Parts: sequence; C-alpha cells; structure tokens
Amino acid sequence: MARIVQCVPNFSEGRNKEVIEKIVDEVRKVEGTKLLDYAPDKDHNRCVVTFIGSPESVVEAAFNLCKRASELIDLSKHEGEHPRMGATDVIPLIPISEVTMDECIEKSKELGKRIGEELNISVFLYEKSASASHRTNLAKIRKGQFEGMNEKMKEDEWKPDFGPDTLNMTAGATAVGSRMPLVAYNVNLDTDNLEIADKIAKSIRGISGGLRYCKALGMEIKERGIVQISMNMVDYTKTPLFRVFDMIEREANRYGVNVIGSEIVGLIPTAALINCADYYLKLEDFSENQLLEKRIYE
Amino acid sequence: MARIVQCVPNFSEGRNKEVIEKIVDEVRKVEGTKLLDYAPDKDHNRCVVTFIGSPESVVEAAFNLCKRASELIDLSKHEGEHPRMGATDVIPLIPISEVTMDECIEKSKELGKRIGEELNISVFLYEKSASASHRTNLAKIRKGQFEGMNEKMKEDEWKPDFGPDTLNMTAGATAVGSRMPLVAYNVNLDTDNLEIADKIAKSIRGISGGLRYCKALGMEIKERGIVQISMNMVDYTKTPLFRVFDMIEREANRYGVNVIGSEIVGLIPTAALINCADYYLKLEDFSENQLLEKRIYE
Repeated sequence: MARIVQCVPNFSEGRNKEVIEKIVDEVRKVEGTKLLDYAPDKDHNRCVVTFIGSPESVVEAAFNLCKRASELIDLSKHEGEHPRMGATDVIPLIPISEVTMDECIEKSKELGKRIGEELNISVFLYEKSASASHRTNLAKIRKGQFEGMNEKMKEDEWKPDFGPDTLNMTAGATAVGSRMPLVAYNVNLDTDNLEIADKIAKSIRGISGGLRYCKALGMEIKERGIVQISMNMVDYTKTPLFRVFDMIEREANRYGVNVIGSEIVGLIPTAALINCADYYLKLEDFSENQLLEKRIYE
Repeated sequence: MARIVQCVPNFSEGRNKEVIEKIVDEVRKVEGTKLLDYAPDKDHNRCVVTFIGSPESVVEAAFNLCKRASELIDLSKHEGEHPRMGATDVIPLIPISEVTMDECIEKSKELGKRIGEELNISVFLYEKSASASHRTNLAKIRKGQFEGMNEKMKEDEWKPDFGPDTLNMTAGATAVGSRMPLVAYNVNLDTDNLEIADKIAKSIRGISGGLRYCKALGMEIKERGIVQISMNMVDYTKTPLFRVFDMIEREANRYGVNVIGSEIVGLIPTAALINCADYYLKLEDFSENQLLEKRIYE
C-alpha cells in the first residue's frame, strides 16, 4: 500500500478501435501506473479508462493520454449520445491510499495547468478542485457542450481556469478535478416488498434528510424474490458503510424485516472496510500503520 | 499487496553490536525484502529479527543470515538465559498475503534442505512443517539445548530432517518451520474486578474448552482502573477476532459488565480485519480482489 491515486479519464471515441488503443497505450507506457480497465461505448462514442498509480505517474499518464486524444480526435466531427465538451472530456483524480484529498487537488491543478499551457486546451477545475461553488458540478460546466462552449466561455463566470479563453476547435475543453472514490454498496432484505425498500432508501439517503454522502434507491431482485437498498457511497470517510448498514437494519426492523446480507459491487479502498472492523471491534488507537502489508511499501 | 511472507529468525548473539549488525545486514542486502525490526537482548544473548518479502527473497535472506551467523557465532562458547540449540536457533516462515500455508511449508523445507546441505547444520522442521507430531513443538525439539543435542540426535525420533546426524560443534542445530501469524489482541472491560476477567478468559480460551486458536489471560490495567482480556490469536483464519470479541461481550454481559474497547498490539495482517468487516456487514461473496490496493501489485 504505497501512495496510490486512481484516475478515470473519459475520452470521446468509442468506435474506432485503433484510435482507442493508441490513446489507452499512453497509460500502459508510463511506469508506476497500472491500467485496470477501459470500457469503450459505441452509442456514447466515448471510452472510460480506469488506472491507478503513484500521484506523479498518474499525472504523467493522464497528461499523455490527453495529449494523444487531442491529436487523434476531432470533436467538431464527433457524434454520440453522451454529453461532451472535449476530446478528453473529464479527468477525475481520486485519493486511494496514503494520499490526502488536498494532495490530489494540488495534483489536479498541476495537471490542468499543463494541459492548458502545453496543449492549448481550456481546462475547468471541478468537484473538490473547483475554483468557485457554481463550478463544482460537471454537468453544469459541460452544459451547452462542445458546440456552445466558445460562447459560454465569454461569460466571466465560465472563464476557464487554465488554457485559452477561446475554444480549441478540435480538442474542445476538459474538466479536471479531484473527488472521493465511490463505493457501490447494496444491502439485501428478507422481503419482496419494494415499498419497504423505497421507504428505507428514502430515510437513509442524504438528499431526503438522511446520511449526507449516501445516495440510495429501493430495487427488486426478482430472481431471489427479495428487495435491496442499492447505494452509492460518495464519501466513505464521512458517511461510513457501517453507519448505513446499522441504520438500514434498524429501519428494517421497524417493518418486521431483516437484513440478510450486503454486497460491495466492484472495487473498494481497503480503508473503507478497515474502518468497519475498527468500529464493530471498538478498536482503541488503531493505526493503518499496524497493517503488516503496509510496511513493505514504506 | 503482493505475495508476502514474514520471517522472524532468532540468532544467538545479543551483546556484540558489530556481529549483530553483520548478521542483520544479510537481510538488508537482499532485494525484495524489508527489514521491519531487530531486537537484541543482552540477558538472553539473543536477537529476534523481523522482516518481510516475497517467498523467494525471504528464503534467500534467511539462508544468508543463517550462513553468516554460523560463521560469526561459536555456540560452544555461548551463554544466555534463553534456551537455544543453534547459532541461528529458529527460523519461522509466516504467510501474510496471497501465500498459502502449504506454499510456506514448501519454502521452509527448501530453506531447511539448503541449510542442512550447504552449511552442514542439522535442521529440524517444526510447527506446520513438522515431519511428525512429536516434533511440532519448538520447546520439545530444543529440550537438552546445544549441550545435549548431539546425544539426543542419536535417538531415532530426534534424527534431524536435513543436514548431519552429528552436531555441528560451533553452529549447532536450527529449527525451521511455518506457522500462522500471531495477532496480539486485547479486549477492555468497564470493571476493575480481575476475577471477572479471569473467568471470561478461561471461558473463551482453547485450552480450557473455548475457541481453539485463542490463548487468553485476565489482566489488570491499573492506570485506567479497568481489567482486560489479553489474548494471543494463533490462527485468525480459524478463530477470527470478531468471534472472540462477540463471545467476550456476551460473557461480560452475564456479569453486568460492558466491553469498552479493544486493542491490536503491534502488527496485524490486513485480512484479519477485512474478515471482521465482512462478518459484521454480512457481506455476500466478497473477494479480497475487490480491494483497490491489491490491483496495483498484480
């Protein structure tokens, strides 16, 4: 467990395999990074790349990917269902292990500056890196898309953070920013009553008054004859898994229903589970430095 | 989290700093290993070294350490309070991450064979590597110590597994074997009544009928005015931490006492805590491959 940042750039090509491979290769080439996944989508004409590495190597790989995409993609000719504003549309940096959010924000600014200055691409900092609160949300930044971006950037409040004030007419604009890792987490109930799952989801999710960094929906799992609270935990350091688990259990009991299990979908930072063990075992003064595996990468 | 084995060799020099450094240097020199700690003890005239690394590099470093110790330590002149039979007295190999016990046993035999053949030192396989049940326990193998070992090895049941049947009169004999990592784990109660801690310790420990791989004692923590169940968990995969925690909580409640916290003393394998999160969250089909940090070292 060295210092690890995750990066999930989205670029605007989901059909031409040759172009996709050339762009993804830029990540493979950088030492210290590990390509985990890339998922081209033909309808969206877009590709989502997932890789991890040291903060320095991640910035290097993300820059190279962005450069290559700007050489190979002409956004003025791009068609696809997904909203987009750039050849590389968005580059999130995510702290995973032994890296603080502040360090990630710093790295995102360094990356944005390089993209702006060296590639002549307008860059918007977003999420935790945003330079103003109205620029936090990616959808708001991207509104108007590539076609409307040149006009939009003339407004003071949409002046880019780095790069030119007039749009690069082939590479467009790119959003760069830091955000927390997202944990997809589901809790299963021993009932097929969707209404109960909906009520519980409503009571625990941040938007309707529940736990701030939890998004939740009730879902039917027809093949098992049960329902589920399906969640996205958008900041496990502030809304931990054990807290939603316990709250769902309590709410379920109110309806005479039991929690029969839960699921982590996809990847999860180790710390998000260690803090559950810490909570339930009531650990005193536990430090992640006590994890044996950490010691080898010091 | 690559493939990691921990190794905790004990060699019979705890006073001469120059000799100690030369022996420990053999671990430092091997690429792929990380020296975590070494603790010379003057009264015992003995030094305990802790290091981790890939299975291959750990065997290499342990062999080199053993070789160097056999060159620098003359056991016929050794005095110390701790029982000992060799210049390198014992070499435990401990599976930590992505290494099975069987693989560790294999490596311990490979290491023992090299020590026997190349260094002309009698080797006893012990613990999980033992070639017979009466040779599992280190204290039993070492009984009679260096001074009595030559006679002892004439008996059929104490013939060494590798190396000469007559004792190396300067380097002695070495025990090599695989064992599980030991987790030192304490649970604190909101009472100063030692009798209650003793009763709970007795009910949960393997030797008196409790959980098989748990050793436990009641202890007073005078400065906090509380008592504690102080434990050694000798196989967390078979007797997990959450099971002793829950059992202690239940037993404590029987006396009207509460668990106020618990402590991990020193290092712990990540898996020993992940399996607690898995239990309390009732995770379905969780795999350690879902831990993001694991992916970078694949």
